[in-house]
Amino acid sequence: MNNLNTFHLIKTCPESKARAGELITPHGVVPTPVFLPVASQGTVKTLTPEEVKGIGITMVLANTYHLYLRPGIDVIAGMGGLHKFMAWDKAVLTDSGGYQIFSLAPLRRVNDEGVVFRSHIDGSEHLITPELAIQFQEALGADIIMVLDECPAYDDSLAKVQAAVRRTHQWAERCQRAQKRRDQALYAIVQGGVLPELRHQSAEYLTSLDFPGYAIGGLSLGEPKQITLTMIEETVALLPENKPRYLMGMGSPEDIIEGVARGIDIFDSALPTRVARNGALFTRLGRVNIRNAAYSRMEQPIETDCVCYTCRTFSAAYLHHLFNSQELLAYRLATIHNLTFISQLMQNVRDAIQNGTSRSFQGEFLAGYQPTDEQTRLEQKQKWLKSRDLSR
Amino acid sequence: MNNLNTFHLIKTCPESKARAGELITPHGVVPTPVFLPVASQGTVKTLTPEEVKGIGITMVLANTYHLYLRPGIDVIAGMGGLHKFMAWDKAVLTDSGGYQIFSLAPLRRVNDEGVVFRSHIDGSEHLITPELAIQFQEALGADIIMVLDECPAYDDSLAKVQAAVRRTHQWAERCQRAQKRRDQALYAIVQGGVLPELRHQSAEYLTSLDFPGYAIGGLSLGEPKQITLTMIEETVALLPENKPRYLMGMGSPEDIIEGVARGIDIFDSALPTRVARNGALFTRLGRVNIRNAAYSRMEQPIETDCVCYTCRTFSAAYLHHLFNSQELLAYRLATIHNLTFISQLMQNVRDAIQNGTSRSFQGEFLAGYQPTDEQTRLEQKQKWLKSRDLSR
Repeated sequence: MNNLNTFHLIKTCPESKARAGELITPHGVVPTPVFLPVASQGTVKTLTPEEVKGIGITMVLANTYHLYLRPGIDVIAGMGGLHKFMAWDKAVLTDSGGYQIFSLAPLRRVNDEGVVFRSHIDGSEHLITPELAIQFQEALGADIIMVLDECPAYDDSLAKVQAAVRRTHQWAERCQRAQKRRDQALYAIVQGGVLPELRHQSAEYLTSLDFPGYAIGGLSLGEPKQITLTMIEETVALLPENKPRYLMGMGSPEDIIEGVARGIDIFDSALPTRVARNGALFTRLGRVNIRNAAYSRMEQPIETDCVCYTCRTFSAAYLHHLFNSQELLAYRLATIHNLTFISQLMQNVRDAIQNGTSRSFQGEFLAGYQPTDEQTRLEQKQKWLKSRDLSR
Repeated sequence: MNNLNTFHLIKTCPESKARAGELITPHGVVPTPVFLPVASQGTVKTLTPEEVKGIGITMVLANTYHLYLRPGIDVIAGMGGLHKFMAWDKAVLTDSGGYQIFSLAPLRRVNDEGVVFRSHIDGSEHLITPELAIQFQEALGADIIMVLDECPAYDDSLAKVQAAVRRTHQWAERCQRAQKRRDQALYAIVQGGVLPELRHQSAEYLTSLDFPGYAIGGLSLGEPKQITLTMIEETVALLPENKPRYLMGMGSPEDIIEGVARGIDIFDSALPTRVARNGALFTRLGRVNIRNAAYSRMEQPIETDCVCYTCRTFSAAYLHHLFNSQELLAYRLATIHNLTFISQLMQNVRDAIQNGTSRSFQGEFLAGYQPTDEQTRLEQKQKWLKSRDLSR
């Protein structure tokens, strides 16, 4: 690791575990806590790079699994790498594809060597190993890259979760050894399902290998929210202070606030952009659905004091009309609003940490914000996972 | 008509009928010949008003039929009119809805009073009369509004086309009498199918009523291109020099060049934006399909010297990838490219008219540009009309 890709811890809240810092990357400084919008296929859905930047986003998440299958790693490498391909000059983090192989791809066979899977696009068979995962991510050229991990399902047996943890550790070591480029930071991924003992083992083992950053994987896969939060606490407690901590795949406003209070620095999630395309918009009071008839004649924007392009330019009634009419502009405008909401939230929570007021900020936010209730959340999750199954 | 909404003829080509002029509207000067992108539902599909403006577009076409059904004329009027509703401060032309009623809506009954139709959205029954068409368009507040006309199909009987012409004339007079606002220019629509004699009758009758502008309707509905062009010539010959001429529903690059040479000032068409969303991009050599594998590794943009945002920012390979991956950004980027192509074409042809070189400009453009062949064109048209039938 050269010093072009490091983490500086700036301040830790005296009352909670919340912390403010910055990631120094070859593509700019990323203030933390940070939220990464998902750009799985090399685009934050509906938006141009300029729009994403204009919202204040400093790093996006792209996906090795998706880009490997389409357009192909060699295509992107031949075009000068992922940044150039997608015309994005800020930081990029690539996931190794582990999670996608274990959640999207059918007919996988996993053994210690690696994992054989079929493409969810055309059914073709592929092998990925820890070494290949690194080779692909070096060719893509992201600023932060991830180890190949095995991500068990929430309802897998203890034996299966144990095997996944063991394999994830072996693969992490192999990824570390396979790494050639020194300008990319390789993060390890702590697994262990919802078992504190396994989480401890995983965190202890991986930190002994001295990675420049640690992710918490395998959460928010259907387990109750309280268990998720407990697992985060159990894991963070064993991670080094001076390394960034990345909570994979969680990014609702309430998740972010809860995660920050538990010492998380990096978040990613498709949720803010995905629910936007379904018409669910974040407000200080919680999510609202713009398709609701209540908005059909509302001259005001969704949030009167919101600084986003959508709220500065259009009435809620216009947005309602675009959604009702299935106009593609609807999905853009809603995405801009939700990402701006999250971007502002990150900035506000970071300011609060630096001002020593993060506890009260968290309290006030959660008091005002009506989170999606547990029942609805789990149903939506199931529906989402099922729709991905069907898309095979 | 007040002088806020007039037409100035600036120059006519000595060798062809091509002419340069300008429309003075309450929302700015519109240089002619001009192309109007379609914003049927109050949005140029996929684009923000800023993007449309940035492309150099000075007027868009919105549709009374669509906006009447959804969100409703009263909703838009209550929001301060269409310009404010869609955040577009340049000129707007609204079609009366005649064409849509006769092409989109099922179960219509037409008599001299007006036309009863069912919504293609929810099947509800509606009556529209010439007086209502004007009332709706005055409430929407476009700069240019259109009479209600009866648009026969290409294969309708002579008797049917004759009846449609007669009714279109009666309705034009009633629209003229119903008009209350003096800041909107009301254009008449010449009908008459592909029969020169009927076109002559229609043009003569309507010009005797002294409208501020004249449209040519009922063309490009499946007839051979040569007949379309002949009908344009026959009609334009009888229209007054000092009034703008609007060719409804035609806007491929080759159509525009042929229409300009025959004295047309205003064009509209969904084609440039619709084919963009299908991956068909305009180049100087003709349309290309970006989904073609030939583009999968092309580092250059679609057109190397194109000034549009898409070509300035992204490789053809990236655009190919977005289309292959069905990413919503694809449809935006292609729309920006095609509208920029048309916008530049309008500017170039206007410059050529003013420089007295429009004949050679036309010749050079058509020599280089491979138009969609007649067979493919008619098949695409049939497919498109059929898909609209199915969308009922």
